[in-house]
Amino acid sequence: MFDLNAYLDSKRKRINSALNEILQNSSDSENLTAAMNYSIMAGGKRLRPVLCIAAAESVGGDEKNVLRAACALEMIHTYSLIHDDLPAMDNDDLRRGKPACHIKFDEATAILAGDALLTLAFQILSSIDFPTDSTDEKHATKWIEVINMITRAAGPKGMIGGQMLDIASEGKSLPIDKLKKIHYLKTGALIEASVCSGAILGGGGSKEIEHLKIYAKNIGLAFQVTDDILNVEGDPIVMGKAVGTDKQHKKATYPSLLGIEKSKSFAKDLVNNALQALGIFDNKSDPLRAVADYIIERKK
Amino acid sequence: MFDLNAYLDSKRKRINSALNEILQNSSDSENLTAAMNYSIMAGGKRLRPVLCIAAAESVGGDEKNVLRAACALEMIHTYSLIHDDLPAMDNDDLRRGKPACHIKFDEATAILAGDALLTLAFQILSSIDFPTDSTDEKHATKWIEVINMITRAAGPKGMIGGQMLDIASEGKSLPIDKLKKIHYLKTGALIEASVCSGAILGGGGSKEIEHLKIYAKNIGLAFQVTDDILNVEGDPIVMGKAVGTDKQHKKATYPSLLGIEKSKSFAKDLVNNALQALGIFDNKSDPLRAVADYIIERKK
Repeated sequence: MFDLNAYLDSKRKRINSALNEILQNSSDSENLTAAMNYSIMAGGKRLRPVLCIAAAESVGGDEKNVLRAACALEMIHTYSLIHDDLPAMDNDDLRRGKPACHIKFDEATAILAGDALLTLAFQILSSIDFPTDSTDEKHATKWIEVINMITRAAGPKGMIGGQMLDIASEGKSLPIDKLKKIHYLKTGALIEASVCSGAILGGGGSKEIEHLKIYAKNIGLAFQVTDDILNVEGDPIVMGKAVGTDKQHKKATYPSLLGIEKSKSFAKDLVNNALQALGIFDNKSDPLRAVADYIIERKK
Repeated sequence: MFDLNAYLDSKRKRINSALNEILQNSSDSENLTAAMNYSIMAGGKRLRPVLCIAAAESVGGDEKNVLRAACALEMIHTYSLIHDDLPAMDNDDLRRGKPACHIKFDEATAILAGDALLTLAFQILSSIDFPTDSTDEKHATKWIEVINMITRAAGPKGMIGGQMLDIASEGKSLPIDKLKKIHYLKTGALIEASVCSGAILGGGGSKEIEHLKIYAKNIGLAFQVTDDILNVEGDPIVMGKAVGTDKQHKKATYPSLLGIEKSKSFAKDLVNNALQALGIFDNKSDPLRAVADYIIERKK
């Protein structure tokens, strides 16, 4: 029986230690370095980097070859949270039970810390070591492909576009297709890029990458549906943030459109689709299988 | 006699047309696309992309091979202006004589438009075509090198670090070395990356790149010294922005530390150093020579 908690603990340790190394002395401004560190170390689940590593392992790749990309994905995720929490955006004072970056520091520092984490993520992705053998070319080409995939997922046709559409739709009733689209852009695209970049850097073939993409699309949406459910019936203490806020802000969510029970069975169906897509893999994919279950069973 | 105006006109046309193509349909949110377009097309001098192209031409390279990098540099510059103008940062309502992005749109849109331009810049830099001949390997390696160089120049040990230190030093008297350092980070580093990325992608050798780096370091600083001088004695109508603001905000500047006449001769010395570094190049470097003079003679 695969032990997800032990797996997550061990991966998180390695991810946190790598992030810590990246962020040490990352700026000439102590304040900026402190703000980046604060938000990165604020207790995230490390879902994206874990997915990246687990996808690489699924195709027979090694953690150490993708750890850099895994860290970059977490840095991009963290930058997006810092900017989303700003007063001009979602105006959230709390994040993971702690003061948001702009509360702990100030708005200017939070804006710049977000900018810095985003830029540093691409610095890490492009700081690759070139082995001096004949695999050179493929090596550089793969990293360029991964950088491009991640920029697309994080950019104006991905996460940033999703956040803009989400802000614009606040207080409006949305058809479910529009909601799915916004959620895909806002959350799903970067989750997909996390899985696929791990698969590419891990040396996966095109069929393997295709199946992992289907897995990622399904768990990405399941993740968002579960987030919406937790915003209705989660425990604010366990979650480290307020619940009921979607209703307050009149946000269109799965529970508001489908009802809570149908939302739960929808999330369950998505996870089943994800597990089915993993059918071509052996037990090296057990971490991905366990993560799929975890995504809808989590309490925060 | 080299005609700088004709050169700038022709390069700007090509840069603007390429930027226009990149930004068309760049997002699923019309609002976000409009905000990015607005700030990119607000009438910048296109100094960084022109330097990138002129550096490539100096080493015998072709404009078309670096146009993508040139556009990315302008997008990064524009994102930094959008974020710098925000109320929490420099709180400037006007930029190039027009309402700043957060005034024309709103703060949330301006934050996201900045984030989007930064991310899109790295998307463009990594959207390279791979020729299928034996130069493949070097090709990908060069682009990775350029991406890494630009991230370093724009990141927390470059432009973002400079902006953070600049905000922290407002109202304080600074020794000239500290001022030079902040200016190098805030402006010089990206100018240097513009010249050096052009030189690398244009196929320059290491000696050529070294000389162009010295050129860039000198004009970068000359640019900032001239900016400070213009803030004292420039014409607000020609410049499209208020003057005297540095004194108002008690900012340490070259004129405040050295006096206006010594600042001018300092800028002139820097340009002479830059021209001397171009001594190893033939007349293909005339655009770079003319740009060096332009930098201290400009009125805006």
